[in-house]
Amino acid sequence: MSDKTAAILGVGPGLGAAVARRFAREGFRIALMARREESMEGARREIESDGGKALSIPTDATDPASVENAFERAKSEIGDPEVFVYNAGAFETGGILDLSPEKFDECFRANCAGAFYAAREVLPAMAEKGRGTIILTGATAALRGSARFSALAVGKFGLRALSQSMAREFGPRGIHVAHTVIDGQIDTERVRGMSPDRDPSTMLSPDAIADEYWKLHTQDPTTWTLELDLRSAVESF
Amino acid sequence: MSDKTAAILGVGPGLGAAVARRFAREGFRIALMARREESMEGARREIESDGGKALSIPTDATDPASVENAFERAKSEIGDPEVFVYNAGAFETGGILDLSPEKFDECFRANCAGAFYAAREVLPAMAEKGRGTIILTGATAALRGSARFSALAVGKFGLRALSQSMAREFGPRGIHVAHTVIDGQIDTERVRGMSPDRDPSTMLSPDAIADEYWKLHTQDPTTWTLELDLRSAVESF
Amino acid sequence: MSDKTAAILGVGPGLGAAVARRFAREGFRIALMARREESMEGARREIESDGGKALSIPTDATDPASVENAFERAKSEIGDPEVFVYNAGAFETGGILDLSPEKFDECFRANCAGAFYAAREVLPAMAEKGRGTIILTGATAALRGSARFSALAVGKFGLRALSQSMAREFGPRGIHVAHTVIDGQIDTERVRGMSPDRDPSTMLSPDAIADEYWKLHTQDPTTWTLELDLRSAVESF
Amino acid sequence: MSDKTAAILGVGPGLGAAVARRFAREGFRIALMARREESMEGARREIESDGGKALSIPTDATDPASVENAFERAKSEIGDPEVFVYNAGAFETGGILDLSPEKFDECFRANCAGAFYAAREVLPAMAEKGRGTIILTGATAALRGSARFSALAVGKFGLRALSQSMAREFGPRGIHVAHTVIDGQIDTERVRGMSPDRDPSTMLSPDAIADEYWKLHTQDPTTWTLELDLRSAVESF
Repeated sequence: MSDKTAAILGVGPGLGAAVARRFAREGFRIALMARREESMEGARREIESDGGKALSIPTDATDPASVENAFERAKSEIGDPEVFVYNAGAFETGGILDLSPEKFDECFRANCAGAFYAAREVLPAMAEKGRGTIILTGATAALRGSARFSALAVGKFGLRALSQSMAREFGPRGIHVAHTVIDGQIDTERVRGMSPDRDPSTMLSPDAIADEYWKLHTQDPTTWTLELDLRSAVESF
Repeated sequence: MSDKTAAILGVGPGLGAAVARRFAREGFRIALMARREESMEGARREIESDGGKALSIPTDATDPASVENAFERAKSEIGDPEVFVYNAGAFETGGILDLSPEKFDECFRANCAGAFYAAREVLPAMAEKGRGTIILTGATAALRGSARFSALAVGKFGLRALSQSMAREFGPRGIHVAHTVIDGQIDTERVRGMSPDRDPSTMLSPDAIADEYWKLHTQDPTTWTLELDLRSAVESF
Repeated sequence: MSDKTAAILGVGPGLGAAVARRFAREGFRIALMARREESMEGARREIESDGGKALSIPTDATDPASVENAFERAKSEIGDPEVFVYNAGAFETGGILDLSPEKFDECFRANCAGAFYAAREVLPAMAEKGRGTIILTGATAALRGSARFSALAVGKFGLRALSQSMAREFGPRGIHVAHTVIDGQIDTERVRGMSPDRDPSTMLSPDAIADEYWKLHTQDPTTWTLELDLRSAVESF
Repeated sequence: MSDKTAAILGVGPGLGAAVARRFAREGFRIALMARREESMEGARREIESDGGKALSIPTDATDPASVENAFERAKSEIGDPEVFVYNAGAFETGGILDLSPEKFDECFRANCAGAFYAAREVLPAMAEKGRGTIILTGATAALRGSARFSALAVGKFGLRALSQSMAREFGPRGIHVAHTVIDGQIDTERVRGMSPDRDPSTMLSPDAIADEYWKLHTQDPTTWTLELDLRSAVESF
């Protein structure tokens, strides 16, 4: 086991779990953070049954105090994260007049502000060591505001802005901040259940995305990527 | 006097006042909205001394209830706005670790969410009439997240996302939603006071911007602009 | 009649003619340039019957010598252009393997290089006077390369690059360079003939676009636009 | 040795050679293509001394016939390329009035058209096999047209358009087309010679870029990247 820790905020059975397993496989201790214990349960058990170390911490990404507490616990139990992945989000569709101000604000906190709350917790130690990787999971909604997707687009545009600002502030201090644009649906049991006949090659494999996150983490410091778009070969875009 | 109303949320002595005067000159009744009465005072007096109608309504753009109340008052006193300009914002600089979660959230509400709160108040009547113009004032920070400008960029990116989503939802229903990218400093007394020797041609004239807003409002419906960038001829960009 | 000249390279019965008429109406002498005399004939006659001055000069936008000769004739007969509009282009569709190298190169010259050849002819006098407007007509293909549209996209991306480079080089010298993004079909007799039942509100009015070009030319120098997107209210985009 | 071939058009001692070595290391036979034999000499010798197979073919990327002949020779001697990297380009600076039409056209052919000429040679076999990777080397000039960089920007914008069009046409047929944005100077002996005191961490390592090209080639088909930006950690951008 390496002496390194990765924290993932936003862990369900899809991408979050895959990223957790991928970094655990490289010897990282993993801090799993999600609202509900049960959504982290599978990843935690898999990692531990493979001899890894995973800590699941119920966390509300939209609540600064909850995020702060989660990172305090992670740091004290498994150490300062050298890698942080923000994978939380709220997928709320609806026209402008269908969304309440409360729902709009909550979506923003899940899709963007939670990454800011968390970044504040991991950046000081990363900056002190002059080393670290922060990956923020974005979507095509980060590049285009569509009708009935304002709540998603506002947060995802904001997350992209945050990524750029952080990369420009902390890159020269040794911290690699990257933003990914996931273009398409991630292949999860839930999605397969909804469309049993769908060709799997049309969906992004969570393990393949997790590989890309690992590659981002291990990029040479003379060739860092700020924004990585990912989509299926057969996606029309 | 026409039978039309324009509402401007975010009125100081610079752009907000210029837009108010420009639309008042065309016969619009103007609802001025700003946090503090005194920042609207000059515009209101100018409009009224020119024989126009202006109503100043103290409004906190970051508070959904305050925005709702402001528009209820505007509608009952001077009618449903056919034009709405969002010109509020919070210009907070600082590194990621210098910003508190509270400040980050507040900046987002001023730079983006307030436009959403307000749009919900004006869109129903516009949609019913199949006519209306919404202009959201953006900045270069809407296109690029810089170090120490995350709080501004997150909100301005979000405002741009909101503009695109609204334009795509409401354009086909006759409502023109436009986003402007103000690239540079607006020429106000405050800015001149800070740099008395500065060449005025390097700053954007508020009246010239207000003319552009009027032109956006009067574009032919077969040639609507979604995004208008504006900068001084001498700006290096 | 003013003492001013506007040159339009790429004049057919649609946008080119409308721009010519619009500037002629403001007193400009017009240099019409197009490959075939007959495509300029209507515009020339209309302008002259309204008491204006128009000169039609057969010009091959893809041939540097032809462009140079055309501008020499325009300058000697009606003076140095203060306004130049590039409106030529080649709309060639087809997959990568369907296009010959010759066709690919020719499309580039029509969609982009012709604007460069022409800009070289008008910029020296504009720079000397510290005044002038250059408008380059672009398309959505300037922002997105689609399958089977590579020949168009390559040239239109290139034209956009040229616009940005010229604006940044010559803006501070008083020359306003603007790029337009025409998103949709322009309403011409040819297009109407092809789809007689089409709702005209789905197409861009050439006269409305020409109005926008006039507005670009008359923008205050503290609020110049680099890129203007234009589309019908009912366009889904 | 695998049964695979990679062709690289534009090979000097920097990136082209590094990409050649990287794919040779994985067992690829390499077709090196550059205008002058001597710029490919080093790469060819290194690959052969490591037991690999490299063929150097003098090629003028700006001449369709030369490109066609080069690929015919490559195919007949070492087989149809499964990987093609376009790395040619012309870096010509100067204001609009300093560039001749001939130079402008030549730059376009080197920066963009050569990739089109070459793609036509490799795509048919790739499409038949339903497999292949095409990587086009771009630059920040692909995203922004600066003063005095029009010749570069026009071609690099065009190359980006070509990448998008090809990716959208051939992705669903199994061919991965990617565009890279190299943001900064590549660390070569020539550059080091020009600035002997320059900190190497400010330049992109050719071998690190070549690693990224290999990673693009081996991405899972459910997570293909269209555009990869690469820059040094310390680059301010």
